[in-house]
Amino acid sequence: MSSSEKNPFAFPDSQVAGVYRAIQERRDMRHFRPGKIDAEILHKLLDAAHHAPSVGLMQPWRFIRITSDPLRQKIYDLVQEERLETAHALGERESEFLRLKVEGIKQCGELLIANLCDNRERFIFGRRTLPEMDLASVACAIQNLWLAARAEGLGMGWVSIFDPVKLATLLHLPAGAKPIAIICLGYVDEFYTSPMLVEAGWAKERPLAELMMENQWTDSV
Amino acid sequence: MSSSEKNPFAFPDSQVAGVYRAIQERRDMRHFRPGKIDAEILHKLLDAAHHAPSVGLMQPWRFIRITSDPLRQKIYDLVQEERLETAHALGERESEFLRLKVEGIKQCGELLIANLCDNRERFIFGRRTLPEMDLASVACAIQNLWLAARAEGLGMGWVSIFDPVKLATLLHLPAGAKPIAIICLGYVDEFYTSPMLVEAGWAKERPLAELMMENQWTDSV
Repeated sequence: MSSSEKNPFAFPDSQVAGVYRAIQERRDMRHFRPGKIDAEILHKLLDAAHHAPSVGLMQPWRFIRITSDPLRQKIYDLVQEERLETAHALGERESEFLRLKVEGIKQCGELLIANLCDNRERFIFGRRTLPEMDLASVACAIQNLWLAARAEGLGMGWVSIFDPVKLATLLHLPAGAKPIAIICLGYVDEFYTSPMLVEAGWAKERPLAELMMENQWTDSV
Repeated sequence: MSSSEKNPFAFPDSQVAGVYRAIQERRDMRHFRPGKIDAEILHKLLDAAHHAPSVGLMQPWRFIRITSDPLRQKIYDLVQEERLETAHALGERESEFLRLKVEGIKQCGELLIANLCDNRERFIFGRRTLPEMDLASVACAIQNLWLAARAEGLGMGWVSIFDPVKLATLLHLPAGAKPIAIICLGYVDEFYTSPMLVEAGWAKERPLAELMMENQWTDSV
């Protein structure tokens, strides 16, 4: 196909623009304002997650919706506990880290836990040498949810500051299953213009060109 | 916000439709037709990947573009080698597996390798208890690329049937870096209507409702 020929499978321009816009304007949100998410929209977001690719079609994602306020408080407490452990492990950046807002668990309209299912060892397709592809599949599902949420005007944050064993116990997960994300979803007053960790001065972004190589690893990266 | 009130951050309908359409029509492609991908579109796709979320903003993805045909052949050979190992490990489904097309490495217009960078242990934010969040970040980047490619009318396949140690050696990766995806990208004659593994009778999809729970794990899942 020459570049002047129109690709028949390409979406119309406005739909293509929507995809790139969601990708570029998606942010990891930690600031929310209260408000229940419409049940129909929540279902569309979860269905978007469920349409993710998965290695060998194993669909390893399991979502737990948190509707109990006491349980939400316990999840918040677990994150606070690990936040202090992380701060300590960061050494000289401890106090700087403690000034960052790292989650919006108590403010967000919906709280979801994304988990890896149990009995994953049965799935060998695409995983014999890379068993961690199950996690990659769940991450793709979460990214789908994130992009769909952004298009709908909703913010999402992925919190991974927790002890997975303690959270698994709290949610009565069976042996072999594992929580990998606390997902905060909700309305926002604004989306961060840049990633919040850039705005807060915690980290700088590197340009794509520095992370691209050709045919082999090159030392400048 | 009441549900009758318009969310000011929501995209226009056609852009929202583009996001959901990309999510729903994305397929893991193994059938390609030849044709170079326009350099500008390739850059847009890689830039979409680069706009992924990453834990603590570590941006752990490193992409290697394969432009050498002898190297492409060697990568193909590695996949064939692991394909036989996987078939053997599958036991009674060995011959069924060997009838499946699991990659399009020699036909696709562009071949990319997605890798985890080296020296990841320096990054503690969001990873003290879940170090595998680096892989989750790279998976989100690959999902961005996948969705953008689908919107542009291009097919993509994620191949994880390879020995990562052998591929790392082939690409001269430093200690600590790891290849996690062979990405086939290119023009297609058609997109599969359903996931190819469903069309081929390898696996059935489970509905979302079976993978959703409330407040705790439930045994019926």
